[in-house]
Amino acid sequence: MKKPIIDPWGAVLFKDYQKIIKNFGITPFDEEILSKLPNPNKLMRRFVVFGHQDLERIVEAMEKKEEFSVVSGIMPSAEKLHLGNRLVVEMVKYFQDQGGKTYLLVADLEALATRGISLEEAERRAIEFYIPAYIALGLDPKNTNFYFQSKNEVVKNLAYEFSTKLTMNEFRAIYGEINAAKIMSVLTQIGDILHPQLKKPMPTIVPVGPDQSCHIRATRDVARRYKKYKFILPSATYHKFTPSLDGEIKMSKSRPGSYISIPEDPETAAKKIMNAVDGGRKTAAEQKRLGGEPEKCIVFEIFKQHLIEDDKELDEIYNKCKSGGLLCGECKANAAKLIKKFMEDFNKKFEKAKDQAKKLF
Amino acid sequence: MKKPIIDPWGAVLFKDYQKIIKNFGITPFDEEILSKLPNPNKLMRRFVVFGHQDLERIVEAMEKKEEFSVVSGIMPSAEKLHLGNRLVVEMVKYFQDQGGKTYLLVADLEALATRGISLEEAERRAIEFYIPAYIALGLDPKNTNFYFQSKNEVVKNLAYEFSTKLTMNEFRAIYGEINAAKIMSVLTQIGDILHPQLKKPMPTIVPVGPDQSCHIRATRDVARRYKKYKFILPSATYHKFTPSLDGEIKMSKSRPGSYISIPEDPETAAKKIMNAVDGGRKTAAEQKRLGGEPEKCIVFEIFKQHLIEDDKELDEIYNKCKSGGLLCGECKANAAKLIKKFMEDFNKKFEKAKDQAKKLF
Repeated sequence: MKKPIIDPWGAVLFKDYQKIIKNFGITPFDEEILSKLPNPNKLMRRFVVFGHQDLERIVEAMEKKEEFSVVSGIMPSAEKLHLGNRLVVEMVKYFQDQGGKTYLLVADLEALATRGISLEEAERRAIEFYIPAYIALGLDPKNTNFYFQSKNEVVKNLAYEFSTKLTMNEFRAIYGEINAAKIMSVLTQIGDILHPQLKKPMPTIVPVGPDQSCHIRATRDVARRYKKYKFILPSATYHKFTPSLDGEIKMSKSRPGSYISIPEDPETAAKKIMNAVDGGRKTAAEQKRLGGEPEKCIVFEIFKQHLIEDDKELDEIYNKCKSGGLLCGECKANAAKLIKKFMEDFNKKFEKAKDQAKKLF
Repeated sequence: MKKPIIDPWGAVLFKDYQKIIKNFGITPFDEEILSKLPNPNKLMRRFVVFGHQDLERIVEAMEKKEEFSVVSGIMPSAEKLHLGNRLVVEMVKYFQDQGGKTYLLVADLEALATRGISLEEAERRAIEFYIPAYIALGLDPKNTNFYFQSKNEVVKNLAYEFSTKLTMNEFRAIYGEINAAKIMSVLTQIGDILHPQLKKPMPTIVPVGPDQSCHIRATRDVARRYKKYKFILPSATYHKFTPSLDGEIKMSKSRPGSYISIPEDPETAAKKIMNAVDGGRKTAAEQKRLGGEPEKCIVFEIFKQHLIEDDKELDEIYNKCKSGGLLCGECKANAAKLIKKFMEDFNKKFEKAKDQAKKLF
């Protein structure tokens, strides 16, 4: 196994991710589990995936060519993604490519209950934007079971069935302040994650960002208690956030300009990259002497998470930067070129995927 | 308007029902509202119906021949009814006969969430027992929309939509100790009651026993707050319990022997009536001198609520009892004969209704 790229966010984010690992009983994602994964994707190889739960079960299913499921969801809250949302698609795609039966649900009931988005509007957004976007980002529509919570009897009925399996105190312990809308959304999500196992128990993997760990915990608690179905506790992978361009931990739709949208006008995306926080020194001379600091560089993190597929190429950038042989202007121009290409590429695929999405429903 | 039969439970139950009237903002059912109702049924004429909310709206709809709905539910908890359950059927039938669009839902999701009864079992019980029993008790199957909560997308989705309209504190204020199963059941019931108004607002009447007043309150609170649909606040009637044969306030499945089941072997039912608490004096001589006490007599209450349709006949029994001209043995033998006939009659109708029920689904 080749030595992983040093995580430039390791130092800064260590505490946050460490807390999640501790609070939610997550296993650190390490060399050992990495070595067992067939064709690990770049997020795994580069430890952007930082934790997991029971990933061994999925490894075993992949090895033995046994059935397993991968489940993910779309919250149709706005007609935009940001670059960070791409990570979950890449993770789902990985498990789909390895043979996982893929379920992608539109959380329209959650959007209705928690954000007042009508079911009709959620459906429109899903079909016109989210689903084609996911396809454009690599999901194989022919091998994906897309569904709407509002139209899935089985999932909704499971939510009722599970409703006795978590006490109010447990809801509060996992989620903090709760209300009826949150309770129903949580129970429905648990139904989403567990329903592939109704006919027969099978390993299930849910790739999530760290902010979703509470749902995994609640789901595993319910699965453990529900003896009737002999559920296999769902597995999960946890990947880091894509940091904001201004250096904050997480890209967020609430700080426009700090993040790159999907889609984004290619020129605008390029400009945003040019303005991102980098790991450069005060002067070119100083940088040539001391080398850059890719560990602090958002652009390098975006290379790592999104723009550079080849590990050697990424290592080269890292080493050239550290040695002072690569200045930020040149490096960012390269990043800008790549993000521009990414966006142009996305736009083309998205247009094509729109028709595919319409045909699905 | 003829003077109503004196309520023999007025004194004993006055406080309980009075409390409900006060706590839940229920209007007492009085001569005035009675005088406005077309062809009031015996439960109305005899003030077994003791309270209502916005019944005037339904009166108006009936007068003007405008559309209105009547909604009731079946909880498939056991394959038996008791005599008290018959009252709600009689009330639903009244409004159905007056032109109300009738919805009878099977609360299979509530049974699943709160009692762990599987959807399959609930469906079996509903089709094999509850629905034929309701038909045998007088409901017109051709004019009734029977449905299962678990199969009604619209109702379930409404439950999600309503989930932000009651705070946790409100849930607790209305229901006391709550949990996720209760919350989901309540929100679904609210969906049941309000869904007939989705296409256009229309008056809705929900005839209930006093133990259901909390659901009406919760439903009216949600309807009032949900501006999007311009719901007309649902109306309700409240009828007294059928008292237990041993003199307790309410027949209950949890004290067998204290209640008359539907169905019940006709001879057994007759025997139970013979053993019921009556309003007789210590000796026949005393009773002839002082008269009986129909106000304390369960048998008289069962005459009033269930066995005697004709008010004159009921008055006659009352007066003969009070004057000492009717002793308990003779009176109970009459009641036993009537309950026997009721059960034989029910059994015949029930057998016929079973086929009708199967054809409905």
